[in-house]
Amino acid sequence: MTTDNSARVSVLGLGAMGTALAGALVKAGYATTCWNRSPGKADELAAQGAEVAPTARDAVRAGRLVIVCLFDHASVHEVLDPLSDELAGRTVVNVTTTSPAQSRELADWAAQAGIAYLDGGIMAVPDMIGRPGSSILYSGSAEVFDEYKPLLELWGTGSYFGEDAGLASLYDLALLAGMYVMFAGFLHGAAMVAPVGMTAGEFAALAAPWLSAMTGGFQGFAEVIDGGDYTVAGQQSLAFSDLGDLVAASADQGISTDVVDMVQRLVRRQIDAGHGEEGFARIIESIRQPA
Amino acid sequence: MTTDNSARVSVLGLGAMGTALAGALVKAGYATTCWNRSPGKADELAAQGAEVAPTARDAVRAGRLVIVCLFDHASVHEVLDPLSDELAGRTVVNVTTTSPAQSRELADWAAQAGIAYLDGGIMAVPDMIGRPGSSILYSGSAEVFDEYKPLLELWGTGSYFGEDAGLASLYDLALLAGMYVMFAGFLHGAAMVAPVGMTAGEFAALAAPWLSAMTGGFQGFAEVIDGGDYTVAGQQSLAFSDLGDLVAASADQGISTDVVDMVQRLVRRQIDAGHGEEGFARIIESIRQPA
Repeated sequence: MTTDNSARVSVLGLGAMGTALAGALVKAGYATTCWNRSPGKADELAAQGAEVAPTARDAVRAGRLVIVCLFDHASVHEVLDPLSDELAGRTVVNVTTTSPAQSRELADWAAQAGIAYLDGGIMAVPDMIGRPGSSILYSGSAEVFDEYKPLLELWGTGSYFGEDAGLASLYDLALLAGMYVMFAGFLHGAAMVAPVGMTAGEFAALAAPWLSAMTGGFQGFAEVIDGGDYTVAGQQSLAFSDLGDLVAASADQGISTDVVDMVQRLVRRQIDAGHGEEGFARIIESIRQPA
Repeated sequence: MTTDNSARVSVLGLGAMGTALAGALVKAGYATTCWNRSPGKADELAAQGAEVAPTARDAVRAGRLVIVCLFDHASVHEVLDPLSDELAGRTVVNVTTTSPAQSRELADWAAQAGIAYLDGGIMAVPDMIGRPGSSILYSGSAEVFDEYKPLLELWGTGSYFGEDAGLASLYDLALLAGMYVMFAGFLHGAAMVAPVGMTAGEFAALAAPWLSAMTGGFQGFAEVIDGGDYTVAGQQSLAFSDLGDLVAASADQGISTDVVDMVQRLVRRQIDAGHGEEGFARIIESIRQPA
């Protein structure tokens, strides 16, 4: 344990994620002070050697670097606004999930208050923090990212995307969109096979390796999209990707077709516009241009 | 090369997939006869040693086992109906993508005509045939699956699900639903980040490992679903999974929100029904029960 002030870190917010982040810091030997609005969340961290502050102000005073991991944008302001005097001259790394616009607003607020600000988007669940596969996206102050990179990388691979504090949130949300939509697709498949007696666990055992393998197709779609020519040979055509059979089979199973209807509408818009012989990647045009 | 009649195989349909299947048979030393409606598709297979039949009838006559890989259910009937006399006593393995109802209809038709019938759903793109990661689902005649397993496994891992010929199609479609929905989610993410200058290729490099890692969450959802209790501790709650920020951020980027609206509706239906504190897996109830 060091007494160097630069190695003193405070963590505001001890939900599952905040607890995991603080735990990794304590384990690495950083003098860590924790705070959570409702008490009792810090017991395990205290047992591991973390200080527990009675108020957010006490926690901020204890650290040169303040990690913020709260519920949402509103709760960040609620906790930080009364402490702007204390935070001036300190550094905030905010990993609360916020929208790009909210991250930019917080960066502006921090700049006004003389607070160095880095925004982070955590691409991991709490259990993954500090383990392989954990990845964290950052944007905002490059100085903060460079200075604290060894600390930030205790949590997972850190990538910095630029001074625009909204970028990490934007990329975070874009990746989360992919995740939630994939989860809905998995659950649709599980609902399709349930009526014939396949358990969700049996379906997960088929679907996890299958979808994992199919992520290998992203780069091919990306090449077509970045190349700007949806007629390149060797692609699966939109006409072949018509999901009529899939929608009908879902309805035959007595389940909602909402999940697959969504894809079918994207496909049909492009086919109806005369692009049926072009590649599947073209459905990004249905997304880029709202109907 | 053997002259054993049982090792004579015919392949009807030489699209990219049929060509890949036939190529794997030729490579393994099976006497393979190919046919395609439009000529010229068999040239490469012929160079590798396949016989090319001038008509579908000639192709069927040449093989004891007939692999059918055509465009859709209608084209299977179009090609096979006039040949039912020739097919009687032979075996058909149909890997054409069809709905469960269509596969069952074909199995009934085959039974009437005295044809042994196995239905297959190929979980691979043509390039993957015969390579690791290729998986093929079968249902229908267990005798056919058992007799031809070594041949079928030249294409990929074969799994047999039961005498109901519709099962392979159902599981195939359920997995394809997952795939198409995941692709839509990826493309939505790529469309979100495009306005700030990230290429689809850069986004694919972030999204492929991320979504691949997130398939690790399926088994956890499945345990909750199969357990029948969405209130089990340790889950991300539906209230926390409200995609309002994600939908707003998508709209801010000037793109369609159709893809993420789909998930948000599934989430909101459960929250509105009073289940906001239960786990995310509960959205399967929004799918099981059409609104």
